[in-house]
Amino acid sequence: MRFFSDNAAAAHPKVIEAIIASNRVDTAYDGDAWSEHLDGAFSELFETEVRAFWVATGTAANCLALAALCPPYRGIICHKDAHIEVDEAGGPGFYTGGAKLMLLDGPGAKLTPQAVAAECDRIRNDVHQVQPAAVSITNATEYGLVYRSAEVAALGQLAKERELALHMDGARFANALATTGERPADATWRAGVDVLSFGFTKNGGLNAEALILFRTELADEVAVRRKRAGHLLSKGRMLAAQILALLEDGLWLDNARAANAAAQILAQAAGDRLVYPVEANELFLRAGDEEAASLRAQGVDFYEWGPGQIRLVTSWDSDSRSVDRLATAIAAL
Amino acid sequence: MRFFSDNAAAAHPKVIEAIIASNRVDTAYDGDAWSEHLDGAFSELFETEVRAFWVATGTAANCLALAALCPPYRGIICHKDAHIEVDEAGGPGFYTGGAKLMLLDGPGAKLTPQAVAAECDRIRNDVHQVQPAAVSITNATEYGLVYRSAEVAALGQLAKERELALHMDGARFANALATTGERPADATWRAGVDVLSFGFTKNGGLNAEALILFRTELADEVAVRRKRAGHLLSKGRMLAAQILALLEDGLWLDNARAANAAAQILAQAAGDRLVYPVEANELFLRAGDEEAASLRAQGVDFYEWGPGQIRLVTSWDSDSRSVDRLATAIAAL
Amino acid sequence: MRFFSDNAAAAHPKVIEAIIASNRVDTAYDGDAWSEHLDGAFSELFETEVRAFWVATGTAANCLALAALCPPYRGIICHKDAHIEVDEAGGPGFYTGGAKLMLLDGPGAKLTPQAVAAECDRIRNDVHQVQPAAVSITNATEYGLVYRSAEVAALGQLAKERELALHMDGARFANALATTGERPADATWRAGVDVLSFGFTKNGGLNAEALILFRTELADEVAVRRKRAGHLLSKGRMLAAQILALLEDGLWLDNARAANAAAQILAQAAGDRLVYPVEANELFLRAGDEEAASLRAQGVDFYEWGPGQIRLVTSWDSDSRSVDRLATAIAAL
Amino acid sequence: MRFFSDNAAAAHPKVIEAIIASNRVDTAYDGDAWSEHLDGAFSELFETEVRAFWVATGTAANCLALAALCPPYRGIICHKDAHIEVDEAGGPGFYTGGAKLMLLDGPGAKLTPQAVAAECDRIRNDVHQVQPAAVSITNATEYGLVYRSAEVAALGQLAKERELALHMDGARFANALATTGERPADATWRAGVDVLSFGFTKNGGLNAEALILFRTELADEVAVRRKRAGHLLSKGRMLAAQILALLEDGLWLDNARAANAAAQILAQAAGDRLVYPVEANELFLRAGDEEAASLRAQGVDFYEWGPGQIRLVTSWDSDSRSVDRLATAIAAL
Repeated sequence: MRFFSDNAAAAHPKVIEAIIASNRVDTAYDGDAWSEHLDGAFSELFETEVRAFWVATGTAANCLALAALCPPYRGIICHKDAHIEVDEAGGPGFYTGGAKLMLLDGPGAKLTPQAVAAECDRIRNDVHQVQPAAVSITNATEYGLVYRSAEVAALGQLAKERELALHMDGARFANALATTGERPADATWRAGVDVLSFGFTKNGGLNAEALILFRTELADEVAVRRKRAGHLLSKGRMLAAQILALLEDGLWLDNARAANAAAQILAQAAGDRLVYPVEANELFLRAGDEEAASLRAQGVDFYEWGPGQIRLVTSWDSDSRSVDRLATAIAAL
Repeated sequence: MRFFSDNAAAAHPKVIEAIIASNRVDTAYDGDAWSEHLDGAFSELFETEVRAFWVATGTAANCLALAALCPPYRGIICHKDAHIEVDEAGGPGFYTGGAKLMLLDGPGAKLTPQAVAAECDRIRNDVHQVQPAAVSITNATEYGLVYRSAEVAALGQLAKERELALHMDGARFANALATTGERPADATWRAGVDVLSFGFTKNGGLNAEALILFRTELADEVAVRRKRAGHLLSKGRMLAAQILALLEDGLWLDNARAANAAAQILAQAAGDRLVYPVEANELFLRAGDEEAASLRAQGVDFYEWGPGQIRLVTSWDSDSRSVDRLATAIAAL
Repeated sequence: MRFFSDNAAAAHPKVIEAIIASNRVDTAYDGDAWSEHLDGAFSELFETEVRAFWVATGTAANCLALAALCPPYRGIICHKDAHIEVDEAGGPGFYTGGAKLMLLDGPGAKLTPQAVAAECDRIRNDVHQVQPAAVSITNATEYGLVYRSAEVAALGQLAKERELALHMDGARFANALATTGERPADATWRAGVDVLSFGFTKNGGLNAEALILFRTELADEVAVRRKRAGHLLSKGRMLAAQILALLEDGLWLDNARAANAAAQILAQAAGDRLVYPVEANELFLRAGDEEAASLRAQGVDFYEWGPGQIRLVTSWDSDSRSVDRLATAIAAL
Repeated sequence: MRFFSDNAAAAHPKVIEAIIASNRVDTAYDGDAWSEHLDGAFSELFETEVRAFWVATGTAANCLALAALCPPYRGIICHKDAHIEVDEAGGPGFYTGGAKLMLLDGPGAKLTPQAVAAECDRIRNDVHQVQPAAVSITNATEYGLVYRSAEVAALGQLAKERELALHMDGARFANALATTGERPADATWRAGVDVLSFGFTKNGGLNAEALILFRTELADEVAVRRKRAGHLLSKGRMLAAQILALLEDGLWLDNARAANAAAQILAQAAGDRLVYPVEANELFLRAGDEEAASLRAQGVDFYEWGPGQIRLVTSWDSDSRSVDRLATAIAAL
């Protein structure tokens, strides 16, 4: 029973169909109808003109975004548990040419305007100290919490005042919106987000993420940086087709709702064990070594998350029998 | 009728099957059975122990290879028409951290030991001038010529004497071997090649290339660099499965033979128009503006290649009726 | 009365003499007798064969050292208050090509083996997390504390066990040794230090630092990196001559002793106000806003160091009347 | 008799005096009166508002300029014999983060608008090929030729049309102006130059170059990049003082005229042996091995410049007796 990561989930059948449908089409790179339709599809979704780029991984999406928003000699404020800091092998340093991640603490891997402002104030404004150029937040966060639009807007307001760009790592953006029911526009550009990494791979895609530029003037640079990083696939149509399949009829939201619903079932069973409220598809549970071992013995696959905690992740294809069995097992601990 | 690039070819049905077969398997990154089998499969093919990494593009394969072989402060000798110089948006500069491509001329985009030696001799051995660390050749070349193993070995010998690493960009390695009938081992490590970018995307894959390290001690570094560049796909199994499907029963060679055979039919028709002998699946023809226009009017899609020349590329799935029609059209020019 | 930084101190008269003496000598870069003597002079001082490079700034020395010890895709463990983190404008990120500084806390900006080991243990050994390659310590530290050789050796031992290189930022190495009376060899390579940034600019030099490689095999790379960074001065003889003038007859130690002695006079006067023991030439004092203003009104120039603290720095040329007047002023607060 | 490089020339006595005069002044970095006066002094010289930065080497000046004018993913058009390509150890690749030098040929290391335009036209305007962002010319060139203002203006006009920035490496800018008698403004910004590396080290300075920004909005970025590269010297006053001493009463022009005059004496003697007209302080002479050996035997120190050629460089302090002796020796060959 796979609960270790939504990374490992299957691609949705419609995604597979879309890949097959785009196979025998004589186009190279992003010269195909699917790729060319991305700008339009996302502009409609976000109710404003955007530029949209497919890439194959979230790391690529995040790092291209940060390189476009932060010069090599400045910094990016983020949470110390952010994926860009912890799990991308230093990719931001590589893509930006040595920009600095400036790490903040805070519960649930959330940033607050107060914390960001304090960090800015702490930095002497001279050439000896690296000055921040951007803020990066993750929604849903690494601990499964969701920023409401008002929270993003408060950060966006501060970013504007401090002349910082705002990036959102939305590897689980779908799960966040499935929870809040907010409009994509409200959760992003209307709240001050400049660039969004919009995740599809964990949510029914095979290997497709969308990099959404609300500042469309960055598109030329991002296009070149994508190629230069080896992320312009020859048959890019297969990436674009996946994304469009997931956008169609709101499949991306349906998938996210399914994952979130499975998480709620487990949350119910976990009760007081929960370290954080469950707002998306990740659960962090207090569980001793023996308890963890007991779950494993019942065939549950998950990550330990520091001493005495485990992480469970549901996904769009979490099998309901497995979820129920796991819920029972948790309740019985 | 697509003759503008093998980049745009369809994926082979067996490749699509393999992607589907690997879809519902609960593994992340390269923790799956397909990925884990790559080292073994390529070690068998190359008759020696190798380390093999999947990546999604040839640019990524080439640039990771070069970054592993050349420090930021040295250079890579290559042909002035090499893909790494002309068509990768400066990716080698990005991945290596600013290493220099040192450009040689020579017919058919081929390097010779004499030219490489002369370039080395030209460089003063002091700290003011960038010293070369590697040589990169392309096989088949950008003009569709094929290095025989003895030619590679002569370059390999020189590289060894000059303490240079040797990289082979094998985006069309299959087409080269389909022509020579040589063993993969003879064409690579036995001839002194340290790292090979082994192309599958143009040859029946959807988006999969293999980076083959004959110097296995580079594997740890390459693994980290791949992740750091955003090229460690979450569901890497889909890349590995493609490659294994193409390796199985020599499908990769069958595909390349089909592409080469189609090229030979066109070559026959082209006769004196050929700028280079046709040794793989690319043809460069002398054709005036009106002649080019005439072909286009008959539905042939191709690139112009400088004034008075056109490039035609066949692929594994070149449709025989189209090939015959094009051959007739060329003969009739 | 200058107490804000030893950075601003004058060059020693013998240093000026040496610059003049080396002026009319027909050599370029480091082809002069002074530069060529550096290896020998430092090998004698350190009682082992070393390679020594002059550079014009401490930032250049530190960053060249780190680039030689840490590849772009790994990290350097250092204190969160280290100069390389706080005051070099992200230079380490630039020189290394994006390596990560891994920040530890600890009193007086000192690292302990326990803290370093804990940081190493915290990092998952996989390709997603950046792995450390080096440790960098500062001696004397940013808070004027001095590592004894045994402390360095404990860090050196740990570094060896963990396969980490060890760098020492010795911008105030002279002040440290003037306090401990230890042999340079004991404080560095015998304790496991691989590369030392040996500061002279704050200690009587005009603009000269020495980068000392105890791992002599790094010399070729460092020589190239120095040139590439624009740090190979045309008339490098003027840097080498400065350093040799300071090494002669132990002038460097005399200068450091003078600075330290001045600091002790102030420390005596400061008594309970001291935040840290005074082990070199820096003092951190508790002082309220009015107290700080009172000192300023008496003509003392210094930095505030966070709320309620001030920093005073003595130097080789601290004028004894100024020191006595400041001591009196502090005692009278 | 030193004729191998003006790099090795002595510093002018007034420069040494200025260094001494600035020694005992309590300022750090560029907080001193000399540094603060640079903007004003150069604004007056160039008859427009400029921002001026001291650095210690020409490589640093050039590379900082190029990094400010060209993003990592674009290119800089220059001559294949330009110092930035041949003699800076790949510094431009390092500082820009991997931008590409695009090499043109042409007699005397001069660029022409025709050649630059042809290079631009050769590049497909897509994401696969690196697009140029800047042009860099050297005045006087590596072969001692001088661009007249009208020539620069023609390049400046083209650069503007193609939206390229224009950098001038003026390591021997003084020698160029000493020849043409043109106003500094006419030779630079009025002709379209955006950034000038203005050399002083070869012309009476000890180790001081000025980076002149005619586009003053680049100043903040350059200031940070300078610090980050380790080129913000603690006692920067000693660099500023050198430059101001050379600017005073036109000493820089006097020095350059002296060097040029010495070169003319040698040119006279060399007659038909000259490979290029002598327009500054460098001479390239045809001389066989025996002839070169004969000069060496008479105590002349110089570089061979490929087979059958030698390079002679005069400087501000070329001793007239040596010049006359060398002239006689050349005439006698």
